[in-house]
Amino acid sequence: MGKYVFGVDVGGTTVKLGLFDESGMVLDKWEIPTRTESSGVNILPDIATSIQSKMSEKAIAEEDVAGVGVGAPGPVDGNGIIHKAVNLGWSEMNLKKELTQLLGGMRVEGGNDANVAALGEMWKGGGQGYENLVAVTLGTGVGGGIIINGKIMTGATGSGGEIGHIHVEDEETEACGCGNYGCLEEYASATGITRLANRKLKQSDKDSVLRNGEVSAKAVFDAVKAGDELAIEIAKQFGDYLGKGLAVIAGVINPEIFVIGGGVSKAGEVLFDYIRPSFDKTVFHGCKDTKFALATLGNDAGIYGAAKMVLD
Amino acid sequence: MGKYVFGVDVGGTTVKLGLFDESGMVLDKWEIPTRTESSGVNILPDIATSIQSKMSEKAIAEEDVAGVGVGAPGPVDGNGIIHKAVNLGWSEMNLKKELTQLLGGMRVEGGNDANVAALGEMWKGGGQGYENLVAVTLGTGVGGGIIINGKIMTGATGSGGEIGHIHVEDEETEACGCGNYGCLEEYASATGITRLANRKLKQSDKDSVLRNGEVSAKAVFDAVKAGDELAIEIAKQFGDYLGKGLAVIAGVINPEIFVIGGGVSKAGEVLFDYIRPSFDKTVFHGCKDTKFALATLGNDAGIYGAAKMVLD
Repeated sequence: MGKYVFGVDVGGTTVKLGLFDESGMVLDKWEIPTRTESSGVNILPDIATSIQSKMSEKAIAEEDVAGVGVGAPGPVDGNGIIHKAVNLGWSEMNLKKELTQLLGGMRVEGGNDANVAALGEMWKGGGQGYENLVAVTLGTGVGGGIIINGKIMTGATGSGGEIGHIHVEDEETEACGCGNYGCLEEYASATGITRLANRKLKQSDKDSVLRNGEVSAKAVFDAVKAGDELAIEIAKQFGDYLGKGLAVIAGVINPEIFVIGGGVSKAGEVLFDYIRPSFDKTVFHGCKDTKFALATLGNDAGIYGAAKMVLD
Repeated sequence: MGKYVFGVDVGGTTVKLGLFDESGMVLDKWEIPTRTESSGVNILPDIATSIQSKMSEKAIAEEDVAGVGVGAPGPVDGNGIIHKAVNLGWSEMNLKKELTQLLGGMRVEGGNDANVAALGEMWKGGGQGYENLVAVTLGTGVGGGIIINGKIMTGATGSGGEIGHIHVEDEETEACGCGNYGCLEEYASATGITRLANRKLKQSDKDSVLRNGEVSAKAVFDAVKAGDELAIEIAKQFGDYLGKGLAVIAGVINPEIFVIGGGVSKAGEVLFDYIRPSFDKTVFHGCKDTKFALATLGNDAGIYGAAKMVLD
């Protein structure tokens, strides 16, 4: 009989947990609240308790568990130490060591949530069959995770794959959340698309369905699908920035595939129609065959990738 | 007694060879011509013959050789197959397999020359003490090599680290050698700096020492050191493009250090004065402590890195 693996995805509000077998089949999936008060001291003990009660509920012995993988929102270095996970209240936390102790010596692996989700998409999602991929998450912000030869590329200080903050526009006057000006996230996130749309609506006199109702990334792409001209102009701007940004990343990393996820990706394959022209125009010829796919695991990518970390 | 290692750097005109001990001490260094005629069929046999005569000259037995590393100008995939090495006349060559056969089964490792040189700088050059680095070669073109956890990042099709062709300028009207417009190489190579200088000299009425004599990257940086205002403007343009380009690379890879080499780097540390402002302004905060150093091995970086490939 194969072993069991737990995958844990720590978010600012809830902790998602999954119990997997070694083949990647989900046997159970549940959530607990993230108690961020008191600098988040309860988070890891809560996770340990939850795993232990699941084990006793399912009558799983410790020797049948290969380990626990954890993804968390912050830079995690090669030793499993997370630095400044502000959403959790942690300043520095040795994820790996602390949770191993709480679990009586069980094997624990830790990683940054975006990187871990990328590994999940490689294992069981939109990147199946590839070992060199870049996962791009277009949500409230733009996140990224880079997988090289099947392994997470952590970077020297855990900031590898922070592609939301690559500089793509010199003329930007509004600051990004990170403090810089002209980051990719300012144009390619859901928030960024909304901002591009509001700007365009102000600058243009053109009629548009976007003038009736709430402006959002979803509204923009719904309007694009309905053939709305102004929405198409906005989508072109979005795609121009994102395509150029991904072309640079392709030239540096030379991945096999980009896997695009996050809320914005719910628009579907139409995104690629807007990303590919500027990508194709600016990418190095040796990388022009880089593939694009949609992420398929949604919010479960984190627990899959976390489990996968333990199986490597 | 430790073993011997050969490092081979195949260029379009000459093949550089080095005999090393395992600690990285150079015991001998020599060159042979690169015979590119007849689709380069003689190149590998010439290298094998040269290594074998060196072994008999020094009375080195086959069992005392750990192997032969080879860097070559073209994309080399993870299996040691080089694709389209146009300067050598090769369309596709299984470097590793062919040379192993010629050398009676000796271990051979192959890599792209820029990547291999990066490994050399990590081992014995400007990147000593670091395992995550990006080597940037500012020569006739702009080349790059990326080392992650002490290993070359090859990329999916051997184009990893082709940083000379990342897109940095939308408004460029002259094509890069690669066919695209606005590649980093068009502003940060020796040729690129000369082009920026000629443009600036045409646009400006300002007096400059660059108006007397040949315009070159060296002349520009010599003039910068002499306080020439126009040359300083050119250096600022160069540094603005290169700093922004390296900031993007830092955000993607999160290296510990950039090691800058190639002919342009002979200008010395003054380069960093022009690169750092735009780097610091646009880089993701998690990567702001990335270090910069000059390459120190010059044309020998390739043979060092080639030897190092065998020792890993």
